[in-house]
Amino acid sequence: MTDFLINIELHDNSSFQQQIREKLVQLIKQDTFGDKPLPSGRKMAQMIGVSRNTIVLVYESLVDEGYLIARKRSGFFVHPDLAFESSINLVHSEPIASSRKPNWCKRMQAKPSEFTSLNKDKNWIKNPYPFIYGHINVNDFPLYQWRECSRIAESRGKLHEWVEGFIDMDDPELIAQIRHQILSKRGIVAQSDEVLITLGTQNSLYLLSTLLADKDVTFGIENPGYVELRHIISLCGSPVKPLKVDQGGVQLGEQLKGCNYVFVTPSHQYPTTVTMDVNRRKALLEQAYQDNFVVIEDDYESEVNFIEEPLPALKSFDQHGRVIYVGSLSKSLTPGIRIGYLVADKELVHELRKLRHFHYRHPPSNNQRTTALFISQGYYDSHVRRMRRTYEEKWRLMQEGISLYIKNCHIQSTAGSFCFWIGLPEHVTSKALLAIAADNGILVESGDSLFIEEDAPKNYIRLGFSAIHSDKILEGLAILGGLIDKLAQQKVTASLASPAL
Amino acid sequence: MTDFLINIELHDNSSFQQQIREKLVQLIKQDTFGDKPLPSGRKMAQMIGVSRNTIVLVYESLVDEGYLIARKRSGFFVHPDLAFESSINLVHSEPIASSRKPNWCKRMQAKPSEFTSLNKDKNWIKNPYPFIYGHINVNDFPLYQWRECSRIAESRGKLHEWVEGFIDMDDPELIAQIRHQILSKRGIVAQSDEVLITLGTQNSLYLLSTLLADKDVTFGIENPGYVELRHIISLCGSPVKPLKVDQGGVQLGEQLKGCNYVFVTPSHQYPTTVTMDVNRRKALLEQAYQDNFVVIEDDYESEVNFIEEPLPALKSFDQHGRVIYVGSLSKSLTPGIRIGYLVADKELVHELRKLRHFHYRHPPSNNQRTTALFISQGYYDSHVRRMRRTYEEKWRLMQEGISLYIKNCHIQSTAGSFCFWIGLPEHVTSKALLAIAADNGILVESGDSLFIEEDAPKNYIRLGFSAIHSDKILEGLAILGGLIDKLAQQKVTASLASPAL
Repeated sequence: MTDFLINIELHDNSSFQQQIREKLVQLIKQDTFGDKPLPSGRKMAQMIGVSRNTIVLVYESLVDEGYLIARKRSGFFVHPDLAFESSINLVHSEPIASSRKPNWCKRMQAKPSEFTSLNKDKNWIKNPYPFIYGHINVNDFPLYQWRECSRIAESRGKLHEWVEGFIDMDDPELIAQIRHQILSKRGIVAQSDEVLITLGTQNSLYLLSTLLADKDVTFGIENPGYVELRHIISLCGSPVKPLKVDQGGVQLGEQLKGCNYVFVTPSHQYPTTVTMDVNRRKALLEQAYQDNFVVIEDDYESEVNFIEEPLPALKSFDQHGRVIYVGSLSKSLTPGIRIGYLVADKELVHELRKLRHFHYRHPPSNNQRTTALFISQGYYDSHVRRMRRTYEEKWRLMQEGISLYIKNCHIQSTAGSFCFWIGLPEHVTSKALLAIAADNGILVESGDSLFIEEDAPKNYIRLGFSAIHSDKILEGLAILGGLIDKLAQQKVTASLASPAL
Repeated sequence: MTDFLINIELHDNSSFQQQIREKLVQLIKQDTFGDKPLPSGRKMAQMIGVSRNTIVLVYESLVDEGYLIARKRSGFFVHPDLAFESSINLVHSEPIASSRKPNWCKRMQAKPSEFTSLNKDKNWIKNPYPFIYGHINVNDFPLYQWRECSRIAESRGKLHEWVEGFIDMDDPELIAQIRHQILSKRGIVAQSDEVLITLGTQNSLYLLSTLLADKDVTFGIENPGYVELRHIISLCGSPVKPLKVDQGGVQLGEQLKGCNYVFVTPSHQYPTTVTMDVNRRKALLEQAYQDNFVVIEDDYESEVNFIEEPLPALKSFDQHGRVIYVGSLSKSLTPGIRIGYLVADKELVHELRKLRHFHYRHPPSNNQRTTALFISQGYYDSHVRRMRRTYEEKWRLMQEGISLYIKNCHIQSTAGSFCFWIGLPEHVTSKALLAIAADNGILVESGDSLFIEEDAPKNYIRLGFSAIHSDKILEGLAILGGLIDKLAQQKVTASLASPAL
């Protein structure tokens, strides 16, 4: 009996069976064993340093899958049919002469990479005070409940409901759950044909822009605002009009005239976190009707109000069919599964559904079904409740720390959000602060790229608190406050030393 | 103790616990119970007709999730904090006056719904002989293996790898598995930055068209061919040039000149199923270089060759960087999870990745991870092997039946595919055949919409065999053959009775 020396460095990140199986599949495909028997279970177990039973289980599963056959008294062999499965020999492998390549730069009609995005520091975890935004705490994910729903969706009897895909429909159960358990809480009554499942808010906005944008169509967007939306609209060929924002959200009146679409975040304005009150909501809708524009409502952060009840969505006040509503589960559950939804006139939803068909058919049907179960079993609501409690505690610590340590700054007080928007003392740029903050283990985000105009203020920052540990919040804000004071002082000293001419 | 009459119609489609839990969550949210205790476990069990244990488990899980509290000796009550959770009252509910609504018809820049698609009969299952295409047999889905991988991806230690989402990256493990286990089998060597994960072939083509199409850019596409691609290119604003196809796939030479992009399906041409031979592949690439066009290769149905080995992908012969390769797991595993991939120059992939970011960020990260595990454990390969065996048997039955019963038709012999493309006798239209076939319980697909030109032949049909049961294939083809003969005979008789003037 021939024996092979097999070396598998086992680690703790996945089960031994899984690691051994993966390695054996690789070796089999590389034709390592030929027509010789694999090492016996006992030998293999010794070589790798696991129990014989582990090896036997792996061998048996490889027999089930047609990789191995067991021959009485001789051991396990590679299945003879596998000979035909080897990789195709390479026709060439020399590098391509660049002179013969197409000129991709000239062929591409746009350069999406040139649009600025918020740069997230991938190494944030190494910093003791990461005041970054948009982080999901993996330990808060309702793992047990999600797994239960995933297990149900993947049971034999349920499989036919998603394995074939939905062609261009959505999971009717997810539509029902979103209507009855999510939209109803926002005061929105929508029929099934007025709801479309998407791959998140960004995808909803992209589909809408693709269908509605054109060079003669103006989109009004909040300034400061959601930077990616500006790029999406530009990619789709429409001009963008920046709209002024105050402590009540987007300002009404003259600036909205001439807009065909007005994008707003009434629950918490992105990024200032202010809430639009009921009166302005009603006045906005009245103006939409009078001036014939359509409002796109991103119901961003509607879940996180800590000191008062949330207001009903703008869409719930809409008596003229002038609001397109978009929401998602990215912030409230996880961005990983990419589930969002939009509510609009059924004529529009019908065309968006067809357009979505050409883009990508439908959001993955297994995720739609698992999410539907997750909501129907009450897990979504209880998760949001739990999350709100966790964040409320941190938010109150942030409030406390900011009022104690962050001096001479403009701080908008709001009823809740996942972040704080702070105007630094004039002449203290966010860039200067970011640099010295990073030296002190503090990560904050510059607001620069959230403004549209070239000569925008350079002294705004955003402080998120989902990533930072509660115990570190006050400490971090104390250090940050000291750094802001120091920068403000330097500027004052500098301007005293060299007075303006 | 107050008691409620609770009526739950239990069915067998999901577990009793799951149904009772869903119903109770509904009742709790409708404030059915107020501050009264819920029926005792024993009473509830009697009312619904399940064991007391089932009720206790549901009650306990609702306590865990914060819906109920247990009070000693008094029973289970709705959690007092839930009072704040009721739905917002509706501001209005009267229908919107249509005169005040935006004019959506005028606002939409395109009408995607006006593009013709293949109409799939959703009631196909009621027909004894469904020769339809694109059906996935749910029983063939490797359920046990998929669940195992999903369980691993959803384990506590693995969660952080997908719950946060990938921003605009892909799962590096999925990229590695696709490179080493799927692309290598097609003879393709690709670096990590030359591969992009997408939501399937359609999505790959949409992203490519968005980036590359313009009114001065011509896309040559096969005729007959993939109808959705024609619509995608039109939606993106480029002219489409129909390309002639023969028994070796798309014809080379004059017709390709003036094309900036040439879309081909070399493994099995869609829908004629013919394979492009090695000589034509090499000549196509030479012409691409000489005439400066780029080839988009959809490696459609490369898995299903029954009488000879598959040829390496066109991309594997590509020495001038002129091939963009697209593939997917929709046909080989399931369209439900929406996983596809493309291979191209890294400069192009870099921009496509950014564009994808604006479209929808990334394909859901849980599905990417589960798929990576599924491939790494050897399950994907063994599934494809099993599937090939199943389809080979059916394909041979189809061959046999067609040669026995389908007379006077043009039948292209090929090495394999999931379907057969058949030219009926001249003057027998697919439309006429579809009508009488349906009366006889036979579903076939008309080829009409797969041709681009207005005056295209009307006598082509496509016969799929994934949905029909093996036992019914010969029987169904015998009946179909009879119907074709009958229609051909009618035409002959009719033309004899009324000779041309």
